[in-house]
Amino acid sequence: MKIISVLSGGMDSATALAWALSNGHDVACAVQFQYGSKHNERELEHARLIAAYYGVQLIVIPLQFVADHFKSDLLLTGDAVPEGHYADPSMKRTVVPFRNGIMLACAAGLAESAGAQAVLLGNHFGDHAVYPDCRASLVAPMAGAIRQGTYAQLELLAPFCDVDKREDVRIGEILRVPWDKTYSCYNGREKHCGKCGTCVERKEAFVLAGVHDPTAYEDA
Amino acid sequence: MKIISVLSGGMDSATALAWALSNGHDVACAVQFQYGSKHNERELEHARLIAAYYGVQLIVIPLQFVADHFKSDLLLTGDAVPEGHYADPSMKRTVVPFRNGIMLACAAGLAESAGAQAVLLGNHFGDHAVYPDCRASLVAPMAGAIRQGTYAQLELLAPFCDVDKREDVRIGEILRVPWDKTYSCYNGREKHCGKCGTCVERKEAFVLAGVHDPTAYEDA
Repeated sequence: MKIISVLSGGMDSATALAWALSNGHDVACAVQFQYGSKHNERELEHARLIAAYYGVQLIVIPLQFVADHFKSDLLLTGDAVPEGHYADPSMKRTVVPFRNGIMLACAAGLAESAGAQAVLLGNHFGDHAVYPDCRASLVAPMAGAIRQGTYAQLELLAPFCDVDKREDVRIGEILRVPWDKTYSCYNGREKHCGKCGTCVERKEAFVLAGVHDPTAYEDA
Repeated sequence: MKIISVLSGGMDSATALAWALSNGHDVACAVQFQYGSKHNERELEHARLIAAYYGVQLIVIPLQFVADHFKSDLLLTGDAVPEGHYADPSMKRTVVPFRNGIMLACAAGLAESAGAQAVLLGNHFGDHAVYPDCRASLVAPMAGAIRQGTYAQLELLAPFCDVDKREDVRIGEILRVPWDKTYSCYNGREKHCGKCGTCVERKEAFVLAGVHDPTAYEDA
């Protein structure tokens, strides 16, 4: 199937891309969104590395209005990123309102224009604690909206929606995802800080999956 | 209820805004999208007139990537706009893939950031012939996605989803919508061309509703 893959530069979307290619899907392009988060430039750098590694074209979509008008500590316009566990209530401050909905809608329009049949999202079950826009309850109606709102009746593929991050890492390892080319840290510095919610989650997932973590953390 | 109103500059979204205000809703802002259509600049000019008329703040969201990457004859990057009836199959060429889905997703994020409880869309039943992203079948799952994907469980209001354009004009006339401040023509010249699908629909709606049409058409 010809698909468009949402590619943030993180571990989950890299694994989803690897999954798509290993399943024989024709990836028309990957798409990355620049919405003004603190780690967005760094994510782009890594999305480029991953796309190049897999020989897939990368389209970059600027969504500067998010940083201009939305409220979130993930954004450059917000306060400092909180430290702690990814599922802590404090992580609510890092939610960018309806971000996944916006990205999926844009990717759907792009996919219909490219003559693709589906959009691929690499969200996983662990995202669901504080991020309402990553839950299956968002993915299911969004899939309906995309199917009903396009001539091609595009599908939304979210193969890891019911899988936790540990399992996601195990699958990625089997698919030989180049983990060193992925980036997670919300602070966006060169090295992963090791302390923000997504760094804590990244470390934990490698340990729980029993997979070697090649990441250089600031707090190592 | 505090709401965000999608305002294109056309008759339907102006009527929806008038409806919201007359129903006592607190319109936090109206939002207009610049996605590179041939009539987008002209629409913006008129959205500003309508917002000023109703004393509502207008936020303009640039979506230049649509013109850069999407295929549609409505876009500056597309071919000439077809002439004929709004419901003609040729009008398919003016569909901008998943445009309403993208606009609603962006408006939902904006609404959650603004502390609003709902997003208002002025689509009507007559849009449905060739525009899959205007149909109730898109609006219903999109409403579900927006409700599930936001902390505030935002509502999507689409009060004219089951009403045709004639009825929409009758309602707008009762609400004293300033029709002369609205703009429809897909060609985006100063005067309405009178021949494109949306001009034909505009003319027809005024006639069928028995309402005086103040528009100066090129082909008058």
